[in-house]
Amino acid sequence: MKRQNVRTLSLVVCTFTYLLVGAAVFDALESETERKRWNHLLELKAALVRKYSISEDDYRMMEVAIIENKPHKAGPQWKFAGAFYFSTVVLAMIGYGHSTPVTIGGKAFCMAYAMVGIPLGLIMFQSIGERLNKFASVVIRRAKQYLKCKKEEATEMNLMFATGMLSSVIITTGAAVFSKYEGWSYFDSFYYCFVTLTTIGFGDYVALQVLIKCFSRNKFSILVLYASYHLTFICFQTIIS
Amino acid sequence: MKRQNVRTLSLVVCTFTYLLVGAAVFDALESETERKRWNHLLELKAALVRKYSISEDDYRMMEVAIIENKPHKAGPQWKFAGAFYFSTVVLAMIGYGHSTPVTIGGKAFCMAYAMVGIPLGLIMFQSIGERLNKFASVVIRRAKQYLKCKKEEATEMNLMFATGMLSSVIITTGAAVFSKYEGWSYFDSFYYCFVTLTTIGFGDYVALQVLIKCFSRNKFSILVLYASYHLTFICFQTIIS
Repeated sequence: MKRQNVRTLSLVVCTFTYLLVGAAVFDALESETERKRWNHLLELKAALVRKYSISEDDYRMMEVAIIENKPHKAGPQWKFAGAFYFSTVVLAMIGYGHSTPVTIGGKAFCMAYAMVGIPLGLIMFQSIGERLNKFASVVIRRAKQYLKCKKEEATEMNLMFATGMLSSVIITTGAAVFSKYEGWSYFDSFYYCFVTLTTIGFGDYVALQVLIKCFSRNKFSILVLYASYHLTFICFQTIIS
Repeated sequence: MKRQNVRTLSLVVCTFTYLLVGAAVFDALESETERKRWNHLLELKAALVRKYSISEDDYRMMEVAIIENKPHKAGPQWKFAGAFYFSTVVLAMIGYGHSTPVTIGGKAFCMAYAMVGIPLGLIMFQSIGERLNKFASVVIRRAKQYLKCKKEEATEMNLMFATGMLSSVIITTGAAVFSKYEGWSYFDSFYYCFVTLTTIGFGDYVALQVLIKCFSRNKFSILVLYASYHLTFICFQTIIS
């Protein structure tokens, strides 16, 4: 077998093993909690159904009503502010899924929008990345001149270090800001930043939901600032990653 | 101002305008439906609360119970099969968010897992991509020899065309298969494939939920085949995109 084929096959085996190991660990970490939560919630449901003698059909209807209402509870998701947030999340390929189009027109437009928007976004992020790289090179050269280093030019290693530092600063300060404004613990905020940075975007934590609610009630000022910060945060994260 | 800076600035302006236009269109397409659904669901809630005279506190508790139960309704999400699916979705950066870790250990492991897994996945996908590219070049050269073309070598254009064709085939057949097994309309299946292909991964449609349910009841055969198909589908989509 060819060397490249062997390499590819080894990578496939590695990744598959990594997935198996991951599955085993997640199972060990989450399964028990899930079972307990499930049982607790079943008991709660049974108690409430018993208390009010709710019929099976009505309960199912209530379930649908509550689940469908979930995104809207945080405020209308498709008014301009929410729709703008959604567009950003699509363009950056994060896809929290906290609100998703339900009409056929909305879904079709979403696909067409992403088809043009994602490449456009990528080109923009790359372009900003190049400018930032250039800027970092200049700063590093100046710093080296100031420190009277032998080699004045910024090396690949220097730039990688700078990127790493910048990412760390963005993710840690981001986590602090989100923790303050969203009322999450610092750990959860950090987890949110990480999930957004990698464009995984589960949607279990979604920032700016407060803003969307307030926007519809015409409250501005600090929230607009916070929204701008969040947009910049998403952009910077995408550029760096 | 430097030419590159002007280019970057124009790209930022373009993207921002594109976001504004997207927001306006989404608002126009989805807002009205959202409002109607919201009102309808409010009425439904009011009717049910009135019918059973449910107290505000109990209703809120029911809401929590139902929302927390949602992922589990499709079957336990963190048993091995579900956890494996979750790991794949993290590695491919899709992040449907249909189930997410809730324990601190789970979240911490998820971050560490993604930090190693995503680069590993990318290297593997790239490696398979290269092998596929090579294979496509050979097939195209053979076809050209057979058709007695002047230039026998596969050009960049040929390869791009082949990739485009392959993507189309994968997305259309994928949509057909998912439509059959998940009970979605063809359009919704296509939308699901697109959202997965671009790694946006909203999580409004998530395949394999039936499998996870059946897996826990020890039903195998065709479902394992379907799961393998789905895994291959995710891999091929990621390689191509």
